[in-house]
Amino acid sequence: MPMSWEMLYAERTSCMKGSGIREFFKLTERPDVISFAGGFPSPDCFPQERIAHVLSELVLQEGTSVLQYGPTEGNHRLRLYLAQKMTREGAITSEENILITNGSQQGLDLISKILLNPHDLVIAEEPGYVGGLGAINNYQGDIIPVSIDEQGLCTHVLEQKLKQFSHEGKKVKLVYVVPNFQNPTGVTMSLERRKHLLQLADRFDFIIIEDNPYGELRYRGEFIPSIKSLDTEGRVIYLGSFSKTFIPGIRVGWIAADRHLVEKLIAAKQATDLCSNTMGQRLVLHFCETGYIDNHVQELVSYYNPKRDLMLSSMEQHFPAGISWTVPDGGFFIWVTFPTNMSSREVLLKCLEQQKVAFVDGGGFFTNGTGKNTARFSFSEASTEEIEEGVYRLGQVLQQVMGKKELVETRTGQQGSPSLTKVASN
Amino acid sequence: MPMSWEMLYAERTSCMKGSGIREFFKLTERPDVISFAGGFPSPDCFPQERIAHVLSELVLQEGTSVLQYGPTEGNHRLRLYLAQKMTREGAITSEENILITNGSQQGLDLISKILLNPHDLVIAEEPGYVGGLGAINNYQGDIIPVSIDEQGLCTHVLEQKLKQFSHEGKKVKLVYVVPNFQNPTGVTMSLERRKHLLQLADRFDFIIIEDNPYGELRYRGEFIPSIKSLDTEGRVIYLGSFSKTFIPGIRVGWIAADRHLVEKLIAAKQATDLCSNTMGQRLVLHFCETGYIDNHVQELVSYYNPKRDLMLSSMEQHFPAGISWTVPDGGFFIWVTFPTNMSSREVLLKCLEQQKVAFVDGGGFFTNGTGKNTARFSFSEASTEEIEEGVYRLGQVLQQVMGKKELVETRTGQQGSPSLTKVASN
Repeated sequence: MPMSWEMLYAERTSCMKGSGIREFFKLTERPDVISFAGGFPSPDCFPQERIAHVLSELVLQEGTSVLQYGPTEGNHRLRLYLAQKMTREGAITSEENILITNGSQQGLDLISKILLNPHDLVIAEEPGYVGGLGAINNYQGDIIPVSIDEQGLCTHVLEQKLKQFSHEGKKVKLVYVVPNFQNPTGVTMSLERRKHLLQLADRFDFIIIEDNPYGELRYRGEFIPSIKSLDTEGRVIYLGSFSKTFIPGIRVGWIAADRHLVEKLIAAKQATDLCSNTMGQRLVLHFCETGYIDNHVQELVSYYNPKRDLMLSSMEQHFPAGISWTVPDGGFFIWVTFPTNMSSREVLLKCLEQQKVAFVDGGGFFTNGTGKNTARFSFSEASTEEIEEGVYRLGQVLQQVMGKKELVETRTGQQGSPSLTKVASN
Repeated sequence: MPMSWEMLYAERTSCMKGSGIREFFKLTERPDVISFAGGFPSPDCFPQERIAHVLSELVLQEGTSVLQYGPTEGNHRLRLYLAQKMTREGAITSEENILITNGSQQGLDLISKILLNPHDLVIAEEPGYVGGLGAINNYQGDIIPVSIDEQGLCTHVLEQKLKQFSHEGKKVKLVYVVPNFQNPTGVTMSLERRKHLLQLADRFDFIIIEDNPYGELRYRGEFIPSIKSLDTEGRVIYLGSFSKTFIPGIRVGWIAADRHLVEKLIAAKQATDLCSNTMGQRLVLHFCETGYIDNHVQELVSYYNPKRDLMLSSMEQHFPAGISWTVPDGGFFIWVTFPTNMSSREVLLKCLEQQKVAFVDGGGFFTNGTGKNTARFSFSEASTEEIEEGVYRLGQVLQQVMGKKELVETRTGQQGSPSLTKVASN
């Protein structure tokens, strides 16, 4: 009997799409291209020599455990360290609240796995992190986008939606947010919005997923308490990661949540991959327990901050009027909004072709086909020379493209979608 | 509003149970207990010094890639190596057919994720690998057990079930087998059965998952071609792992399957954990490309084979009549069947209490509450001294327990369930 795979796939599989962004990266990885597309941490900051030394010592001294299977819930001491760290930062947490995951992406997967039935309603930021949207899609959650502005998720918009759903007898199960230096926009959710979100969660009985991979990379402004630390009911599931503050290649992240939930997550993870890699966990633990990671985070801040400044000032200098962008307080990303009538994909193709410069066009971060005039710029991987040169070259293309059009309209008119216009250039 | 997690869990979460075996391990890990319970590879065989050296070199020389995110589908050269290895072993495979996973357990998860709708029918060996059953349960597949005997899955029994389902208008989607030195029984599926299974797959249009973590650890008997290598239609999804042939702590396994399926699996993995750990993959690749792993597998065979022999001969010497067990040609496990009226759990508790010896009672490997008189013994982790001493002590307990009962009945009567009675002792 001839095979027909299409007939055999599960219903949920029709919701799975390879990330367009990842496919696109292949184009941008040509060595002659200056790329602001990738959102990876800079390998300049990987403490290679120290990692090489520590790994070697750990394998020699503790090889029988470091190379063996480990507990599904993760390294005991690492869970303890993370519980203490989170408690210090305001969210009272014990070891039983922590599950180690393969980066925070696995956290998103496991949470969706144990909580989402097909067509459960999930609120997500628009634009939002594609990995988070992907995890929800994989379990057929119905994503309801809510816009963000320079204060983060528009909780007043959310409140209206929740009321409307309530009238219709519908219930939102999860709200997914990246409150600090969000991917892709770089914006940070204000304390007021965080508190408002928690009030709404209590009133409308939903769970908040707080995904915080970038939170420690704050370059300016005051620390804002995590939503988790403001949570008195256990409604917040917090996701942490060592991918941006240490290295991503070992895939170590964590979930901090109510212990009943963590028990279910452990059961789910057992049949998902038995355990996360023990060697990577032990390596992270060494860097945590010795205090190295705290100093390292400070070094990262000193490394990324000037790159952020340079990209912003270069945009100011070279981008024509009518283009706006966000001013992030931390993380890796700046979100650019071109005039409404411009296609960022077309700009991107021109930039690649004419000037060999890449960024990510923003449409992929929207669920509803909008955002076609937006773009994500990352300053994490490019060198300062590349940032200066790349933004200059982009400016050339943009002036050429926009010079041809009647820009008076866009200068005074709409600023594109979404209106993240904290700073409008020139 | 007070929280109620139970109200929020997805339907599938009710199918997730923490593995009783894993919970039980905590009991058996006391240092004064001789344990045949765990099925982990022996850390005696981890090439610690070489791993320490290679890791250190790789991080120093290739740190920018080894510590960074990698492609979702896995390390390019490792995929190529695995494709060539599988082709050499009879299954023509190219790089596009390979996806690197976090151990083969993640392979089981991803396959279930993209193929299983709730209540899809999945055939599994009874007794069977709990991790495989867990992955199917996590996606609400309905498991239909089919017994195994000393030739592996009873394909004639399967054929009858398939006919019956066909009459009832039902369709089996997947058949999950561990054909070599199966966990928990140690039995190997004969070539005839493999061929029969493929014929049935063609006739009844189902997919075969061939999970082969132990296949390279063959201590005697002739190599039997993989089901994948006999497959002309692309119906077989093959799962491989480095956990038993190298080290488990880095979580590196692979799926080899039809390329259309692999594309879907990559999309699913992207939203599951972005990528497997790059450092572990690169480490494995080094050991593969240098040919080290092939020699290492030979060393493992030389290491485990005498332990297998010793456990079998010790059972022969110390176990009373009425007990039977399997004689594995490879892998880590011997499956013991006590007389039908005996509870292996009770025997286990007595052994632990009186003699500080542990094994796994077999009930957990059955889906239907049977198998209560069975047990899994592993010879992989215990030393030869522990095997001799532990089986002796067990024999004491068994003689005591069985001496109290009327054994004439069990000697001549039923041999327990299932009847894996290749060798009946004494």
